[in-house]
Amino acid sequence: MSKYSGGLTLALAGGVGGAKLALGLARVLPPERLTIVVNTGDDEEFHGLHVSPDLDTMTYTLSGLYNPETGWGVAGDSFETLAMLKRLGSETWFNLGDRDFAMHIRRTEMLRQGMTLSEVTGELAGRLGIKHQIVPMSDDPVRTVLETDIGTLSMQDYFVLRRAEPRVNAINYLGAEQARPSPGFAAALASADSIVFCPSNPYLSVAPILAVPGVRDAITAHSGCRVAVSPIVGGDAVRGPAGKIMAELGAEVSVVGVAREYVGLCDVLVVDRQDAGRWEQVLSEGMEAAATDTIMNTDDDKIRLARVVLELAEQVEYAGC
Amino acid sequence: MSKYSGGLTLALAGGVGGAKLALGLARVLPPERLTIVVNTGDDEEFHGLHVSPDLDTMTYTLSGLYNPETGWGVAGDSFETLAMLKRLGSETWFNLGDRDFAMHIRRTEMLRQGMTLSEVTGELAGRLGIKHQIVPMSDDPVRTVLETDIGTLSMQDYFVLRRAEPRVNAINYLGAEQARPSPGFAAALASADSIVFCPSNPYLSVAPILAVPGVRDAITAHSGCRVAVSPIVGGDAVRGPAGKIMAELGAEVSVVGVAREYVGLCDVLVVDRQDAGRWEQVLSEGMEAAATDTIMNTDDDKIRLARVVLELAEQVEYAGC
Repeated sequence: MSKYSGGLTLALAGGVGGAKLALGLARVLPPERLTIVVNTGDDEEFHGLHVSPDLDTMTYTLSGLYNPETGWGVAGDSFETLAMLKRLGSETWFNLGDRDFAMHIRRTEMLRQGMTLSEVTGELAGRLGIKHQIVPMSDDPVRTVLETDIGTLSMQDYFVLRRAEPRVNAINYLGAEQARPSPGFAAALASADSIVFCPSNPYLSVAPILAVPGVRDAITAHSGCRVAVSPIVGGDAVRGPAGKIMAELGAEVSVVGVAREYVGLCDVLVVDRQDAGRWEQVLSEGMEAAATDTIMNTDDDKIRLARVVLELAEQVEYAGC
Repeated sequence: MSKYSGGLTLALAGGVGGAKLALGLARVLPPERLTIVVNTGDDEEFHGLHVSPDLDTMTYTLSGLYNPETGWGVAGDSFETLAMLKRLGSETWFNLGDRDFAMHIRRTEMLRQGMTLSEVTGELAGRLGIKHQIVPMSDDPVRTVLETDIGTLSMQDYFVLRRAEPRVNAINYLGAEQARPSPGFAAALASADSIVFCPSNPYLSVAPILAVPGVRDAITAHSGCRVAVSPIVGGDAVRGPAGKIMAELGAEVSVVGVAREYVGLCDVLVVDRQDAGRWEQVLSEGMEAAATDTIMNTDDDKIRLARVVLELAEQVEYAGC
């Protein structure tokens, strides 16, 4: 059992970076003490199948199936189904392995049978031996689309097919206005003692979660401790296009820029040691700051950072946040 | 081009045995001279995907992907998707390989987009390089179910899961009354010079085709030549449960029993040389008979038997059938 005295921790996460910290949290906290809420703004239909990239990255990471070399999919997966689909005339720019396909086939089958995405996600995670609760931000469809210099692009079109090369002018979260937080998310929002913003892309991973009606207000009004880990280290994203997008949207690509995104939503921003010099500027944005090593290569890195985040949450709690 | 002077040949087929003769016919006749109509009574949904076993066996056979060792699926296929589906809690008694899954995924996607099964089948066959026309017997759902001593079973449940072990009391073709022949089948019925009954199971492969309203009457009234190849050789089926089912339904398991099934529908029954001694009895059922080697192991066997069938059709034509 955990030494951390607090009750429930609610973690908000996108894909790879978020899943790394979530794995650390899951190694430190028992299942009943952690709810991981995952972005579904990236969900898209491929080959008639419902693909949930961030939910899958989270599920693969927590189940140990994760492929650290690619950042997506199942380690050691083969690609026979996709190769045959290409032969049959399908667009195959979105890489899907044979084992990965099983997830999308099973998810789609269960959704068509009338199960919610929350129920499906819980069932798939349970089958892969995951004890902690992974929940989609919403059971309703929300789709992140990017307004770019070459037109409106879906998230996967922008990120995978176009390699995040088009210039982003604006980002919209289609369907968000009609979406409701998933039951697990709503319950965790109501009962969580602390909220952790994992080091995910603020625009493409965290913002879709915040766009679900009621979520931003609930987090703003949350009486517990709220800790964010900066996805920006040393002036760029650890991974992915967050830095490029921040710059294109006119934000400062730094921990200060991240602080400005999360002001009012978070109490403490955890920055990497190499950004410790920006401490004063983070404080001046109205947020506490803490510096530690935030690059997570090994599982020990993930567990260590999770402990730092949870200890900060406790300290803030004792100080009365 | 073919030396055969006739116009269009319409071949009726189920899975393995039918596909063997169809391959022979396709090697002998140019695409515009052959329409292959395939049983879809075995179609079933697995994992939310539309699987058409006989259409796939036909498509794999004509495209050269066919696995001669198993009798189903794609040669050299792997089974990663199915293994993962099993891990995710799915029933996986129906074997589906990774490349095979691509067919079912693509078929299901196109059907959900509103294409007919005929259109989907033509598209998939074309992508795999098949020039000859493969058409489902109907674009409407027909499902073969077996009344057995352990209850009503779907075709795949009976054939694959139960290994054809239950005793069959009756066979029904659900939906057949409301089904229409597919457009390609209807066109071929109206214009074919000759009709070939491939050596498929009379009850599970050919009967569903005949159960589609209008088909039996059209074939009965057909003025051209109609030739059947017996799937029963030497007192049992070459492959599959046809012999066992014939016996359970009270029919004689022999070429004579086959002749009784097809009397009025066919002019000539092609039997294997080892059944040549039953010639008189076939004639007494009101059908011509011809004996040749009907076991098709090699492609040459398939082509040779196809030539025999087509030559018989011509002879009957000259004689005025």
